[in-house]
Amino acid sequence: MANPLYAVADFCLIPMGLPKPSVGPEIAEVQRVLEKSGLDGYGTNLEGPWDDVCKVIGECHQAVHALGCQRIATDVRIGTRTDKSITSGGNNSKVQRVVDILSEEKK
Amino acid sequence: MANPLYAVADFCLIPMGLPKPSVGPEIAEVQRVLEKSGLDGYGTNLEGPWDDVCKVIGECHQAVHALGCQRIATDVRIGTRTDKSITSGGNNSKVQRVVDILSEEKK
Amino acid sequence: MANPLYAVADFCLIPMGLPKPSVGPEIAEVQRVLEKSGLDGYGTNLEGPWDDVCKVIGECHQAVHALGCQRIATDVRIGTRTDKSITSGGNNSKVQRVVDILSEEKK
Amino acid sequence: MANPLYAVADFCLIPMGLPKPSVGPEIAEVQRVLEKSGLDGYGTNLEGPWDDVCKVIGECHQAVHALGCQRIATDVRIGTRTDKSITSGGNNSKVQRVVDILSEEKK
Repeated sequence: MANPLYAVADFCLIPMGLPKPSVGPEIAEVQRVLEKSGLDGYGTNLEGPWDDVCKVIGECHQAVHALGCQRIATDVRIGTRTDKSITSGGNNSKVQRVVDILSEEKK
Repeated sequence: MANPLYAVADFCLIPMGLPKPSVGPEIAEVQRVLEKSGLDGYGTNLEGPWDDVCKVIGECHQAVHALGCQRIATDVRIGTRTDKSITSGGNNSKVQRVVDILSEEKK
Repeated sequence: MANPLYAVADFCLIPMGLPKPSVGPEIAEVQRVLEKSGLDGYGTNLEGPWDDVCKVIGECHQAVHALGCQRIATDVRIGTRTDKSITSGGNNSKVQRVVDILSEEKK
Repeated sequence: MANPLYAVADFCLIPMGLPKPSVGPEIAEVQRVLEKSGLDGYGTNLEGPWDDVCKVIGECHQAVHALGCQRIATDVRIGTRTDKSITSGGNNSKVQRVVDILSEEKK
């Protein structure tokens, strides 16, 4: 059964076992997967129904393994809430709320 | 389509918006969900097929929301690898490998 | 002895035990501490000498406790590297590198 | 000025840029640094005064770089609280509290 929760996430995918410290090409591949996913997101942010968010991060792992990377470690920060109905813009509205508070006090 | 990757994870679920700093009852509920899941795990560790691991963490969110908590923030560290076939014991074997290295040098 | 490593970090501070799911005022306070710190940073990003980065995150905890929050859980992603000398702009240059790769292929 | 907060942390250090997916020797080195630190801890747990905890994690980065690893990404979960005075055993007491709740209900 699908999980009805809307998830607002941010993740950091780390390719391991590559004989080079830079991982730009692998992270670019992650961006391509995110763009194709159709979910809301920017940079490492991603949001949507719980199952979809998890599925897309899993597809990022598959895509980076497909580039030849044998081990991947990802850190995902994922949040859900039931006090308001969010169906999009969760990450943006969190940022906007803080910007509003800070600009209010400068008046 | 199911993600064929085997995931080794560790997560930290944080209930927010509760008028008390202690969250023992909520974390105990998380343990109950993990025990029922049938996946390998101990404490905050959890491992199994990618989709199952994500599904169980989502069920933990649902269970803690059902206790009355309105907002939850979870940090998930999740890893996959293709250089060896792991179907269980991923977390334990990582710990054992380090214990072995450390005990070897004490001989 | 000071740690000579330059650290590029990103952190997510979660106030707990507040009787409300929204934490905008607490996160705004974190932004004020970051602005005063003089370290490079934007949003939840922060970079500088290892000790300074850790010190500032600790000051954020102190400031949010001072607002009356009794418990705080923070997730910090922190990286260091010795293959190149970074003294500022670490987070920006990581993003720029990925943007470059993605725009290159669209030509 | 020293930060007076007592921090309870858990961290996951990921060596990057090594031409092998396994990182047992690097993680063993982290354990050696932790043992020498004199701080409370087990496995990836670590606790003590805020500054000391951050200092020791920084020493782990230095030690792993000294093994030849050029890039390290660490995820640190670090918590502080002011509702009770903790000077040791923070991680253990969190686990014990959950064990107590779960065993209570089995009576």
